[in-house]
Amino acid sequence: MRAAVIHAARDLRLDDVPEGELGPDEVRITFGAGGICGSDLSYYGKGRVGDFAVRRPMVLGHEVAGTVLETGRAVAGLAPGMRVAVDPSRPCLSCADCREGRGHLCRDMRFFGSAARDPHVQGAFSERFVARADQCVPVPDTVPMRVAATAEPLAVALHGIRRAGELLGRDVVVAGAGPIGLLLVMAARLAGAARITVTDLAEEPLRIAREIGAAETIRVGQEPDGLARYEADRGRFDVALEATGAPAALASLFRVVRPGGRVVQIGMMPPGDVPVPVNRLMAREIDFVGSFRFGAEFRTAVALLASGRIDVAPILSAEMPASDLPAAFALAADRTRAIKVHLRF
Amino acid sequence: MRAAVIHAARDLRLDDVPEGELGPDEVRITFGAGGICGSDLSYYGKGRVGDFAVRRPMVLGHEVAGTVLETGRAVAGLAPGMRVAVDPSRPCLSCADCREGRGHLCRDMRFFGSAARDPHVQGAFSERFVARADQCVPVPDTVPMRVAATAEPLAVALHGIRRAGELLGRDVVVAGAGPIGLLLVMAARLAGAARITVTDLAEEPLRIAREIGAAETIRVGQEPDGLARYEADRGRFDVALEATGAPAALASLFRVVRPGGRVVQIGMMPPGDVPVPVNRLMAREIDFVGSFRFGAEFRTAVALLASGRIDVAPILSAEMPASDLPAAFALAADRTRAIKVHLRF
Amino acid sequence: MRAAVIHAARDLRLDDVPEGELGPDEVRITFGAGGICGSDLSYYGKGRVGDFAVRRPMVLGHEVAGTVLETGRAVAGLAPGMRVAVDPSRPCLSCADCREGRGHLCRDMRFFGSAARDPHVQGAFSERFVARADQCVPVPDTVPMRVAATAEPLAVALHGIRRAGELLGRDVVVAGAGPIGLLLVMAARLAGAARITVTDLAEEPLRIAREIGAAETIRVGQEPDGLARYEADRGRFDVALEATGAPAALASLFRVVRPGGRVVQIGMMPPGDVPVPVNRLMAREIDFVGSFRFGAEFRTAVALLASGRIDVAPILSAEMPASDLPAAFALAADRTRAIKVHLRF
Amino acid sequence: MRAAVIHAARDLRLDDVPEGELGPDEVRITFGAGGICGSDLSYYGKGRVGDFAVRRPMVLGHEVAGTVLETGRAVAGLAPGMRVAVDPSRPCLSCADCREGRGHLCRDMRFFGSAARDPHVQGAFSERFVARADQCVPVPDTVPMRVAATAEPLAVALHGIRRAGELLGRDVVVAGAGPIGLLLVMAARLAGAARITVTDLAEEPLRIAREIGAAETIRVGQEPDGLARYEADRGRFDVALEATGAPAALASLFRVVRPGGRVVQIGMMPPGDVPVPVNRLMAREIDFVGSFRFGAEFRTAVALLASGRIDVAPILSAEMPASDLPAAFALAADRTRAIKVHLRF
Repeated sequence: MRAAVIHAARDLRLDDVPEGELGPDEVRITFGAGGICGSDLSYYGKGRVGDFAVRRPMVLGHEVAGTVLETGRAVAGLAPGMRVAVDPSRPCLSCADCREGRGHLCRDMRFFGSAARDPHVQGAFSERFVARADQCVPVPDTVPMRVAATAEPLAVALHGIRRAGELLGRDVVVAGAGPIGLLLVMAARLAGAARITVTDLAEEPLRIAREIGAAETIRVGQEPDGLARYEADRGRFDVALEATGAPAALASLFRVVRPGGRVVQIGMMPPGDVPVPVNRLMAREIDFVGSFRFGAEFRTAVALLASGRIDVAPILSAEMPASDLPAAFALAADRTRAIKVHLRF
Repeated sequence: MRAAVIHAARDLRLDDVPEGELGPDEVRITFGAGGICGSDLSYYGKGRVGDFAVRRPMVLGHEVAGTVLETGRAVAGLAPGMRVAVDPSRPCLSCADCREGRGHLCRDMRFFGSAARDPHVQGAFSERFVARADQCVPVPDTVPMRVAATAEPLAVALHGIRRAGELLGRDVVVAGAGPIGLLLVMAARLAGAARITVTDLAEEPLRIAREIGAAETIRVGQEPDGLARYEADRGRFDVALEATGAPAALASLFRVVRPGGRVVQIGMMPPGDVPVPVNRLMAREIDFVGSFRFGAEFRTAVALLASGRIDVAPILSAEMPASDLPAAFALAADRTRAIKVHLRF
Repeated sequence: MRAAVIHAARDLRLDDVPEGELGPDEVRITFGAGGICGSDLSYYGKGRVGDFAVRRPMVLGHEVAGTVLETGRAVAGLAPGMRVAVDPSRPCLSCADCREGRGHLCRDMRFFGSAARDPHVQGAFSERFVARADQCVPVPDTVPMRVAATAEPLAVALHGIRRAGELLGRDVVVAGAGPIGLLLVMAARLAGAARITVTDLAEEPLRIAREIGAAETIRVGQEPDGLARYEADRGRFDVALEATGAPAALASLFRVVRPGGRVVQIGMMPPGDVPVPVNRLMAREIDFVGSFRFGAEFRTAVALLASGRIDVAPILSAEMPASDLPAAFALAADRTRAIKVHLRF
Repeated sequence: MRAAVIHAARDLRLDDVPEGELGPDEVRITFGAGGICGSDLSYYGKGRVGDFAVRRPMVLGHEVAGTVLETGRAVAGLAPGMRVAVDPSRPCLSCADCREGRGHLCRDMRFFGSAARDPHVQGAFSERFVARADQCVPVPDTVPMRVAATAEPLAVALHGIRRAGELLGRDVVVAGAGPIGLLLVMAARLAGAARITVTDLAEEPLRIAREIGAAETIRVGQEPDGLARYEADRGRFDVALEATGAPAALASLFRVVRPGGRVVQIGMMPPGDVPVPVNRLMAREIDFVGSFRFGAEFRTAVALLASGRIDVAPILSAEMPASDLPAAFALAADRTRAIKVHLRF
């Protein structure tokens, strides 16, 4: 069976790998569509994501949907032929974090296509893959595979919105119009944000931001005052969502968030220490919080996609065959040409 | 009337100043006791607190208690001879922050002895001073003036504890055993923290920390592993309270707070930008929040002092006459000899 | 000047009343439109709202918008000719409730057209009326007066939604499709509720509920199982909004809310004691909370109406001249024919 | 092996029962001490707890501690001879409630000695009993078995305090000075409540309430005004904890809780529908919330007992041999003579 295997930085191969074994509570799934994520690109480009380096060959991929091929003997509620979105998270369910509702921070998490543990947890960019039954959420036939595969990054955005607190009638700024940034715009709008401002270095993603409901977009570095126009009177935004991982973007947000407001770091992991204006954080009582992965939001994401309340079509840039692996990754990495690129096998 | 007036860095004088006028809703108070705060020391030592420079002579002092001498004609509930703790905050009451319960972040705040506005708001280190009636909270005769004057820094600590979230049964680390750090220990213990660890550079304040209930103290730089012993298994503390303003202390806290935990910056304003491990903040979903001044906690502080549930005696180092102004400020600035020094007139 | 004055139950007259005096921080407003509220109908029908009986003549009306005619000398930001939605709340701003962000529960509240105090606070169903400047929120010319006047009940609904907690992706049931019930549907949808079920005794309001986004409506007493279909497996809804004031409706909601869910009482004041299944409230850890009036949500409501994110057109039933007072109140009271009826002078 | 088996109302026998089988992740425990709970008394007195009737013989008991006798092959961290407090909860860990941090509301909960399911889950009043390893929390040798067995009701109280929200500096009223009521007093005091008022029908438990820190006790029916003295000015208490299950007690609490305050139903299950002043709940925006069992609070309880921060000695009334089963239950049911009675085998 073919799979997209990362060996080292810039060394991504379409290898022949053995099929996974099927446990009693597991399901074998035929690959439908898989989105290339920023972390996949980071493994590809740098051989690592943050502190987690690829130390042995690892199948990439964690934004996937497919069709059930085979079910373990203890599986109920799923049957061959069913179409499913697959949650890449497999928390232990029994540690204190899991028991207290923080399963997404489980110390023993097994997350598809991640080098955080060694041996690495294999990903799902392969002709077939195995998941625990509770990772699989059925999707109606009306939902295309690419849309179903978007449940994962949408869940990331929904979780970020939950970390942002109440948004009804609030003014929100989103730094970064990549896939997560744009999904944050959709989710913030769904949560009733009154007015959403989006910043980015590139024009094309900002065009999409406006299309999906941003009231205003700012092209960083191109507009003389940029966000600075909002610095007066101790800040204008109730909530800022930082989805670039760039220290300069984070710094700009702290200048425009009002006293008692909230800054959320989400989606892109910044590189180690970042200068933060802690004097402002203190004097304005700003909450600066991290958002990481998701929990129950995965099922919410599937429901929102199935009902059409969230329409991800504007960010689906291309679908390419796994045989074009290098081209697909190159396109996914080019922010002027693509937001979200999917693979098919 | 004599008052402690700051003119510039290192230029603090006992000047003769005119009495303030008494408005209809105001009260004239005879000075009882006044604590020297870190911000008073900063005005004295550097002529500024953070971004706020002394641009014209200003009476210092905002941790004060005294005896009502005279009441404006519209004042009810206060009468000459009553002993009061005085809340130095005078928010506008009508802006959006005030209306939404964030009066302590009021954009039009008048806070005793602060150069944040220009003209500066005069402080209360003077033989007599004027306050709005709603700033005055009566204290029983059994509460010494010095204790009553401690309501202000205790309110700062109580507000920080509120910003820290629920502490019942939690493990807490406090960085810094200055006045605010020690009051945080008292307040965290009152809020039911299970186990409190305190760090400081000096031994004497740590001795007091143990006396008032810290389970463990760590002398930073003197103990080989210091807080590092708590870094394993992704952090041990539920909540960290940073009360030093020192970047190194903040950095150490981010290494020992568990996933889903909380870091509060309080009491000491750090100098501008501070490196923060935003990757860890994100991957562990840590909340990093500022705590600034206080609101309703002032009345709570007075009640806790009056009922004896909080006993501040261990931090009351000395009471000195205003005529010894330089000596009093020198003592207050020497952390090996003093925690909280009070003035009397 | 003519005004709609309630004298006793069923005794509502178009009286000639003197103009109010204009204080320095006040504004005189020419009546634009005023919605007849359930409490106006209660004063009219029963001479009382809950415990508050009409003891002397009182001008009714608190859902109003108009045009500034004259401003007091201390008023800034408002000028003759400006169109404003008027918040009927005038909290004292200085009590503990006001200072702690609960100004809408102020013990010294002066609310337009309310007999809660004696002397009563006069309402705004009059050719002209006086309001404090901070009660007036400018509205663009594009917003019809009737729509601007709907800011008040929309604020009630928005506050209820805030009391309901996070709704993003949640399943919500609304009991009652009167004006508040329908505005709750709009607000819950705006807040991202996944699926909204609405119940009522009458078909016409349920038709409107479907029009504005309810996924399902249930005509109580007409459908064999009604909400009962959702009782299985310990309840299906995350949040229930009770907007009828009817004990039977409340009881039905407790049967269909899931463990850890929330029931909000809003809009209609139930008559004194109501049987509540406290055993279920306890064993399922349900939160049963009250929602009363609103605070900052008034400004949010105006902004949502001005931007078009909330479209109240479907609930605007009729606009009638004050000279037809009895007919207007009769129409407003007939739920089969009208949702929200407005007066004009 | 002998065990205390309930057959029907008033039919409690010391039967000979077979030992339970030991699963790989389970532990066999020698009974140390077991507290008789209100629900044990209800099974004994009425053959039921609320809706849950005893339909077949069931071993009672869920407040237990003991010594590890034998461990299953997959058990780590526990060894024969270790003393443990045993959490009677065994949630499924995989349902939505468990995953979202509400494991104590798990729809598939197996709780020791409960007839909520059929077949019933057997309890632990037996010479030996089996528990899953994750139910067992080691306790130091310094903690007597009776104290360790009190971790369970203390966990109930701690969970109730968590449901009550922040208590630091708050005024609290507790209705009912039974075991849960008194543990609530301890826990509320630990959480920093400023002033605690306790009501009960009997004098002896109120004496203990004062001993453990209640500022005031009110003997209901004996004092002319009782709680009524606190009804003025729209209520005085921030939080009310209802631990009697008596409708009259609940009603009295709604009259003395301030606007924006909170009422928690805990410990005793009221009989079905109870009249609630929903008009007051609405107009004062009171939160009325249920508290049921506990989750992570069990480990917190053990830690607080082990560190001595909570001293339950004042409520430990007697320890009796299982051979005196009827006498022990009779004593436990007599509130004038006993608060908490323990069994030993």
